[in-house]
Amino acid sequence: MRKYHLLAPGPTPVPPRVLEAMARPLMHHRTKEFEALFEEVRSGLSWLYQSEGDVIMLAASGSGGMEASAANLLSPGDSALVVEGGKFGERWVEICRAYGFETDVISVEWGRSVDLGEVESRLRAGGHRAVFVQASETSTGAKHDVRQLAEVVRRTSPDTLVVADAITALGVYDLRPEEWDLDAVITGSQKALMLPPGLAFVWLSERAWAVAEKAGSPRFYFDLRIERKSQAKNTTAWTPAISLVEGLRVALEMMRGEGLENIFARHARLAGGMRSALRAQGLGIFPRDLLSESVSAVSVPEGIDGKAIPRLMQNEQGITIAGGQGHLSGKIFRIGHMGYVDESDMLAAIGGLERVLSSLGHELEKGAGLTAAQEEFGR
Amino acid sequence: MRKYHLLAPGPTPVPPRVLEAMARPLMHHRTKEFEALFEEVRSGLSWLYQSEGDVIMLAASGSGGMEASAANLLSPGDSALVVEGGKFGERWVEICRAYGFETDVISVEWGRSVDLGEVESRLRAGGHRAVFVQASETSTGAKHDVRQLAEVVRRTSPDTLVVADAITALGVYDLRPEEWDLDAVITGSQKALMLPPGLAFVWLSERAWAVAEKAGSPRFYFDLRIERKSQAKNTTAWTPAISLVEGLRVALEMMRGEGLENIFARHARLAGGMRSALRAQGLGIFPRDLLSESVSAVSVPEGIDGKAIPRLMQNEQGITIAGGQGHLSGKIFRIGHMGYVDESDMLAAIGGLERVLSSLGHELEKGAGLTAAQEEFGR
Repeated sequence: MRKYHLLAPGPTPVPPRVLEAMARPLMHHRTKEFEALFEEVRSGLSWLYQSEGDVIMLAASGSGGMEASAANLLSPGDSALVVEGGKFGERWVEICRAYGFETDVISVEWGRSVDLGEVESRLRAGGHRAVFVQASETSTGAKHDVRQLAEVVRRTSPDTLVVADAITALGVYDLRPEEWDLDAVITGSQKALMLPPGLAFVWLSERAWAVAEKAGSPRFYFDLRIERKSQAKNTTAWTPAISLVEGLRVALEMMRGEGLENIFARHARLAGGMRSALRAQGLGIFPRDLLSESVSAVSVPEGIDGKAIPRLMQNEQGITIAGGQGHLSGKIFRIGHMGYVDESDMLAAIGGLERVLSSLGHELEKGAGLTAAQEEFGR
Repeated sequence: MRKYHLLAPGPTPVPPRVLEAMARPLMHHRTKEFEALFEEVRSGLSWLYQSEGDVIMLAASGSGGMEASAANLLSPGDSALVVEGGKFGERWVEICRAYGFETDVISVEWGRSVDLGEVESRLRAGGHRAVFVQASETSTGAKHDVRQLAEVVRRTSPDTLVVADAITALGVYDLRPEEWDLDAVITGSQKALMLPPGLAFVWLSERAWAVAEKAGSPRFYFDLRIERKSQAKNTTAWTPAISLVEGLRVALEMMRGEGLENIFARHARLAGGMRSALRAQGLGIFPRDLLSESVSAVSVPEGIDGKAIPRLMQNEQGITIAGGQGHLSGKIFRIGHMGYVDESDMLAAIGGLERVLSSLGHELEKGAGLTAAQEEFGR
C-alpha cells in the first residue's frame, strides 16, 4: 500500500471538490446555465490576473496559449527578441521560427535569470515587435524578473510588446500584468489553478489588443479577436472544454476563499521550507539568481545516478517529481510545490527523498531535512 | 423536479462510468502509467477509425482538429476546393481563408448534399491541393457522400487530398478512412465518443503524411509531424488533457464492448424511429438528400415560433436540443441522437416535443409520434 503524491511542477494535484464538479453530468455550452458559469469564471480570472482587462480562455494546453500570443501579435518577418534560459524559452524560439519571425535569441545559461543590461542593449539595436520571456522557467526553477524587464522595455523601446509565459507563475507569486505594464500573460489550468490540463488563458494589454487587430500571421482556432467578441458575451467561439470549466469555477472559488496574499505567502513558505530541507540534506539548489516559488530544481550530487531519483520516488515511494529536461536530464531533479499543496505534502516529499537518496548512497543525517523544513514553516 | 436530458447534436451525454474515470486523482503524463493508458487509447482509436494508420490526439475542440488538417496539408497560395453546405462548411472556408489558401467554394443549398458532378467539373479545372468536406453537416442534418466523393477525386485529380470533417460521423455510421481512400478524417470527443469536449482527433493517409512533411503553413501546437513522433512512443508532444484521456479509455472500452456494427445499427435505428415520430407529428425533415444518423434537423411548421421550440424544450421540459444556425435560426430545430443514447431517450424527446408543439398551437395527434417510433424500433 502506497498513497500517491503528485508533486511535479505540473500537472499538480486536483482538489476532491474540483474532481466532483467535473464529474457532474455534462451541460450544453449554448445555454443560460453555461453563460452564468462562464460569467463567474471570467470574474474569477480577472481577480487572478489583477486586471479588469479580458482574459481569454482556450481549450488547449499552455503551449497553445503561448502560440496564440505569438500568432496574434506578430506578422511574418517581424522581429522577436526571445529570452532563452531553459526548455520553455526554447519553446518560444521554436514557435517564433515556426511562424517565420526574425528571431533574436538571448541565450541565458540554464538556471540563471536574464541579464537586463543584455535585454537593453539588444533592444537598442531596435525594431523588435515583442520580447518573449518566462516569468518562471519551469525547467530550471529560475525566474526572470518580468516587472523590471518591462521597465527596461518601456524605457528603451516603448512600442515593443512584453509577452510573459506565466504558466508556473500566475497564482503562485504576486504578478501584476496591468500594473507592471506587461502585454501578454499566459497561464494554463494544470498549475496554480489546480485543474487537469486542457485549458490555456491569455491576457492582453490594450496596447496588445490594438496590435492583434492588425497582425498578419494566419490563425483561426487561436484567433483571440474572435474569442474576445464571444467571451464578452459569456460564451466561446469554439466549443469549450465544459467539464474543465465546471472545475475551474470551483477552483477559483477556493482560491478566492484563501485570498491572493495568502496564496502567495503559502507558496513562498512551502518553497522556503523545501529549500531549507534540501540544503540540510546536503543538496544544492540549481538556479543561481531568482528562485521560482513554484518549483525547486535540485542539483544531483556527485556520484549519484540522477535519473534514478525521480524513478525511485515514483516506483518505491509513490511520489511523482520530475527529472531534468534537455541537457539537464540526469543532472537535476525538480519538486513542485504549487497549487493544491501544503506543509504535509512537503514533508512527504522530503521524507521520501531522504529514503531514496540514502538508498542511492548519498550520505545525509536522518530527519535533518524534515527538521529544517519545520523550522522554516514555523517562522 | 425535472430530470435533465442532453439531446443536442453535441455535446452528448457522458456515461456515469466515464464521469467516474475522469474524477480519479490526476496522474502525471510523463509516466509509465500514462503511457500504458495512452497505448490502450491509441489501439481503441485505430479500431474506431478502422485503420492501422496513426490517429493523432490533440488537446483542443473539433475546430482545432479541422485547422490542424488544413495547416498541415496546404501551403499559402495553394488551392482548396471547399464544399460549403452549412455552418461547418463555412468553417472550412474561414480556415482556408485565414491561412491564405486560394479558396474555391462549392456553395451547396443548406440541407442538400453536394452534387458530385459539380465536384468533378471543379476538379477538372485542376490544381486543387485538397477538397474539404463534411461527412455529416451537423448544422443541417445532411450528409455528403465522402466515399463517392473520394472516388470522383481519385478518378479526376488523383493527387488532390480529401479532407473530411467526421466530427458527427465517425462512430455514428460506417465510415472507413483507409478503405475509402480518404486523406484526413477529423473527429472530436463530445459526439459519438461520449466525452466532454476538449479532445480532437486527426487521422491522415500515408499520402497525406508525405504532404504534411513539406507543407509550408506555419504551425506549432497543431504540428502533426511533431505529435506523430511523440504519439508513436505513447506520449504527447504537449501536455495532454489527462482527465479526458482517462475518460476516453473507458468510452472506447464501452464502444468495443458494443461493437462497431451494433453501434452503427443503433444510430440508424434511433434516427429511423425519430424521423417516423417527427413525420407522425406532422413535421418535415429539413435535409433533402442524404440524412445523417447523428442528428435530425426539422423544419419549423408555418406559424410556429421556431426559436421558442428549443427554449421551451430546455426551460419547461429539461431537454436540451438545438436551434438552427446562421440563416436557419428560427427555421429549423435539431435533435441529436448520437453517442450514449437509446430508445428511451428518443421517447423522452418525442414526448417533450409533443407537449411543446401543442403549447405553441401546432395541431397533432397525442401519442402518434411515440407510437410511430415504437413501430420503427420494433422492425
